[in-house]
Amino acid sequence: MAVYTEVTDDDLAAFLRGYDIGDAVTFKGIAEGVENSNYLLATTRARFILTLYEKRVAPADLPFFLGLMEHLAERGLSCPLPVKARDGEALKTLCGRPAALVTFLDGVSVRRPTAGHCAALGQALAELHRAGQGFSIRRPNALSVEGWRPLAEAARSRSDAVAPGLDAEIAAELDHLEAAFAALELPRGVIHADLFPNNVLFLGDRLSGLIDFYFACDDALAYDIAICLNAWCFEPDQSFNVTKGRALLAAYGAIRPLSAAEVAALPTLARGAAIRFLLTRLVDWLDTPPGALVKKLDPLEYLRKLRFHQQAEGAAAFGWTS
Amino acid sequence: MAVYTEVTDDDLAAFLRGYDIGDAVTFKGIAEGVENSNYLLATTRARFILTLYEKRVAPADLPFFLGLMEHLAERGLSCPLPVKARDGEALKTLCGRPAALVTFLDGVSVRRPTAGHCAALGQALAELHRAGQGFSIRRPNALSVEGWRPLAEAARSRSDAVAPGLDAEIAAELDHLEAAFAALELPRGVIHADLFPNNVLFLGDRLSGLIDFYFACDDALAYDIAICLNAWCFEPDQSFNVTKGRALLAAYGAIRPLSAAEVAALPTLARGAAIRFLLTRLVDWLDTPPGALVKKLDPLEYLRKLRFHQQAEGAAAFGWTS
Repeated sequence: MAVYTEVTDDDLAAFLRGYDIGDAVTFKGIAEGVENSNYLLATTRARFILTLYEKRVAPADLPFFLGLMEHLAERGLSCPLPVKARDGEALKTLCGRPAALVTFLDGVSVRRPTAGHCAALGQALAELHRAGQGFSIRRPNALSVEGWRPLAEAARSRSDAVAPGLDAEIAAELDHLEAAFAALELPRGVIHADLFPNNVLFLGDRLSGLIDFYFACDDALAYDIAICLNAWCFEPDQSFNVTKGRALLAAYGAIRPLSAAEVAALPTLARGAAIRFLLTRLVDWLDTPPGALVKKLDPLEYLRKLRFHQQAEGAAAFGWTS
Repeated sequence: MAVYTEVTDDDLAAFLRGYDIGDAVTFKGIAEGVENSNYLLATTRARFILTLYEKRVAPADLPFFLGLMEHLAERGLSCPLPVKARDGEALKTLCGRPAALVTFLDGVSVRRPTAGHCAALGQALAELHRAGQGFSIRRPNALSVEGWRPLAEAARSRSDAVAPGLDAEIAAELDHLEAAFAALELPRGVIHADLFPNNVLFLGDRLSGLIDFYFACDDALAYDIAICLNAWCFEPDQSFNVTKGRALLAAYGAIRPLSAAEVAALPTLARGAAIRFLLTRLVDWLDTPPGALVKKLDPLEYLRKLRFHQQAEGAAAFGWTS
């Protein structure tokens, strides 16, 4: 949510000489995305986002992220398309950091999605999963089930200060989920893994684009659906809105039908998605110094969501209708 | 340099219903300006900057700032034009804060201005001073000579930790400047008072706009020139580039000829401008907690500039040629 590396007009002009995209007309640092530096760049030809990759993104992962966006955009998905420099490369260096230009997408993020937005999301998610088939680079999901116990350990001695009994509740849930996830055999592929409302753009009710692929990885496709059920279908009072869940699941299934195993796994996957965001938020919460200008997200929001999923007797609780 | 108040899509849509400017197509928080929240807004009709005024801007000053931009833009100056809502008002409320929409200007700030940039700046500054004549609202300059001693007092006990002997050097300079400024009788009017390179936009070598009028006030017009000599004409090694000073002064004088009193006052005004930025940077430096994501500017840069001005025997030191 900040600009960490300042790019001067001279830096920019030298950088743009490597591209055939015109001259800069507007160049503004924007408050967006994970911990990267992002600039909105308008040239005499078009608009772009320039990203300088800072500490949270591993340089070794960049060919995956940029290659994936190109793969998806070529298959018709509305997502940022990496722009190649004159030398054919999309991944460059600027101000000592890995940097890339991608096309700019119009649209505004919705804070409180309607059922209509959830349906549009479900359709786009299924299209993303279909378009991702055939992408050749692999990236394991470091924040899937194997990654949760280390996060819990990192927070362990301090998590009871956030909520009494939290550490024990997390430990018990992890015991359950590690066994449950080990038993799953589900269709896999490229997932977005962070498709929250701030990463989806709308023009009115029409979904105009998916952005921020920097958590994308290989995992069970239905796990992406479970992340979206968590991120899109709860009301501000933390109640699950089954109408929104039904809209999301039905629109998804119309593009990519769910298997019986995927439907049966939804409660487990939803619990997994809830604990994943609970744990990363918990660690960020505990590790962020007071006064830092980083927005801290409440981990307990996901504890309440987790408890809802624990009560779910099947996919019908999320609005699934066969 | 951040977004302090988050405006949701619903907040924005409700706000835009008060205007006749179309629907939002793009809405991005941008890292720009003093401590306000700024968003780049593109609608189906045009582009705008939406500003929510945070703690550093006094609400009572907003009619001056918005009225001044309107006054200047109507007289042909390329600066942001406040956009009036359907009710005729440019100053509104959004998310509990005073807020205003202004037109967006293309252009990129230059980090290392050339003499050509300095000439373009000098011309635009003179045009600003001429266009400001007749503006009816008054705003005293709280950061002119009467404001410096209180800033020095605020830093006093800690300034020697920044540089040994700094407190005594500041005190002696203020003794000199308070007497010297009291003796000045110079043409007055509206000045920008913060026309650093980041507040001036260029498209190539052409100056495309002046922005950020939130320090504008009434003061000696030549004091604005002195601020620009400080901000534009020193090299990275802190040496004064007399070619740039000459370009700035000649271009200014071609539009608004300087009086003999103004020319004679330039060394005094340059010292005043240097101590003003030295003092505000010093206080910010001492008051900013370690780790805060605010960019701290080096106060000693202006101590070195001050020492240059102290040696100047007349306006010729800055490139003035009669």
